[in-house]
Amino acid sequence: MSRFEVNILGCGAATPTLRHLPSAQIVNVRDRLFMVDCGEGAQIAMRRSKLNMTRLGHIFISHLHGDHCFGLLGLLSTMALNGCNGEIVVHAHPDAEKVFSPMLNYFCRENPFEVHFNPISPSSSEVIYSSKSVVVRTIPLKHRVPTCGFLFEEVAGERHLRGDMLQFYNIPTYMRASIKQGQDFVTPEGEVIANELLTTPPTPPARYAYCSDTMYSERIIPLIEGVDVLYHEATYGDDAQGLTRTTFHSTARQAATIAARANVGKLIIGHFSQRYKDENILLDQAREVFPHTILAHEGMKEVLKV
Amino acid sequence: MSRFEVNILGCGAATPTLRHLPSAQIVNVRDRLFMVDCGEGAQIAMRRSKLNMTRLGHIFISHLHGDHCFGLLGLLSTMALNGCNGEIVVHAHPDAEKVFSPMLNYFCRENPFEVHFNPISPSSSEVIYSSKSVVVRTIPLKHRVPTCGFLFEEVAGERHLRGDMLQFYNIPTYMRASIKQGQDFVTPEGEVIANELLTTPPTPPARYAYCSDTMYSERIIPLIEGVDVLYHEATYGDDAQGLTRTTFHSTARQAATIAARANVGKLIIGHFSQRYKDENILLDQAREVFPHTILAHEGMKEVLKV
Repeated sequence: MSRFEVNILGCGAATPTLRHLPSAQIVNVRDRLFMVDCGEGAQIAMRRSKLNMTRLGHIFISHLHGDHCFGLLGLLSTMALNGCNGEIVVHAHPDAEKVFSPMLNYFCRENPFEVHFNPISPSSSEVIYSSKSVVVRTIPLKHRVPTCGFLFEEVAGERHLRGDMLQFYNIPTYMRASIKQGQDFVTPEGEVIANELLTTPPTPPARYAYCSDTMYSERIIPLIEGVDVLYHEATYGDDAQGLTRTTFHSTARQAATIAARANVGKLIIGHFSQRYKDENILLDQAREVFPHTILAHEGMKEVLKV
Repeated sequence: MSRFEVNILGCGAATPTLRHLPSAQIVNVRDRLFMVDCGEGAQIAMRRSKLNMTRLGHIFISHLHGDHCFGLLGLLSTMALNGCNGEIVVHAHPDAEKVFSPMLNYFCRENPFEVHFNPISPSSSEVIYSSKSVVVRTIPLKHRVPTCGFLFEEVAGERHLRGDMLQFYNIPTYMRASIKQGQDFVTPEGEVIANELLTTPPTPPARYAYCSDTMYSERIIPLIEGVDVLYHEATYGDDAQGLTRTTFHSTARQAATIAARANVGKLIIGHFSQRYKDENILLDQAREVFPHTILAHEGMKEVLKV
């Protein structure tokens, strides 16, 4: 099982509308859930998408603007009611602990789990989480306040055994684990069978990059080069390009330019301003630059690996 | 214009479900909006019900449990984006200012309005707000933490002029305002015409009581005696009556008993536990005791006066 999916819970900009919730996503890597941003309503959207809260252990907050973190207290309270335990780690700007602790201590003091804040410095790209399945790295972004995106990189799996060759060489079961890890096989006669003959390479690791909120920044290109899926904010269309310089956001066309230059597999645009009643105008502008673009929407699931 | 309406934004218990949001309401008195509790998602529900945020100046929080106040920060942020200004008063337990201020100061420091906390003592019934249109009084409730409900009492309007009598006595326009306020009329010949002949009594003031969260408490009956509409929590049905003693909540039947003894006009029950997939069972139990009971639901508008 190598499931890798991205679930969009909210893809609107600062003001929630009747069409979009503020930013929140769940990245599902082999049935471990990772939350990326947690705008108001994230817990309800999670329930709507039938995502199991007890599988959530890490929450990554891109920056401390309300539309990216005001859902945190409600989520943690509901996780407590749902019997989550152990530890929940909130990866966020160093201010987060100071800012959230008074409310957490007041409202969630009876929670059956510990909330641990992992302060992240958004100025350089760093590994902030790693497990057997996934490595999470920060992507420094360019916004009004210190902000970083996140790169989720699957850890390469084992090589795949070739059934025909196992049979041909009559390889005993107990040796298969080490062969999956790349070891050669030595026959009882002393002949060395190279691992490449017995196995096929592991499936290439899936990679997902989340870049929101940010103005156009070519500095991120080397960090997201060739990812399978890039989520990049596209708050505005060409009509409002002037606003990107004062608000530190991007246009759909700028998001697509980053996607094209970084040679990504697919671009998902989101963080839509409430000024667009129909985001297809943003989609069209992005596709002029990068055809493999789709619009985010609440409830959407993007499957990188089944 | 003497509009008096109650808009239900959320009527679920602690865990938001796909059917209910946590507690929040808007009381509209003559197009001034008053919020009662502010659970997560209240701002979106407000928008869905087409309630104009710029008309909201006072927020009343019954108690400091997350499902009654976690929507506050998102609401205040969005009010700022919507250009609300002046002062927003949050009437809440004295701890509220200490608990919310660190986040307000961090996330809302550029808001174009002042947030003022009015500490309310939930141990006795007090007038905490009054204007020309409405008086708001606390109702001490019995819950796990200090809690109070709120009584919204319309200020009596002026007496209504009788057109036929104005004409009969040929009363000049400039005198009408004082006659509405109860003054007699003296004819040029010196005859005194009693005000009761010239006017009909003002419409009786509408009264609305909000009682959530609370266990069964007869102490509140004198405070809510004869209100037009009572909203009383009904977290549980008869099947879970045992839980009311540990959670300090009420059953639907208990809510109806309070309504019957207080001789109210109508009972709205809400704050439904997620264990009930269909709240009609709660409605049936309440109606056995007090027939004029209805179920709250999100988006519902109860009109006390047009």
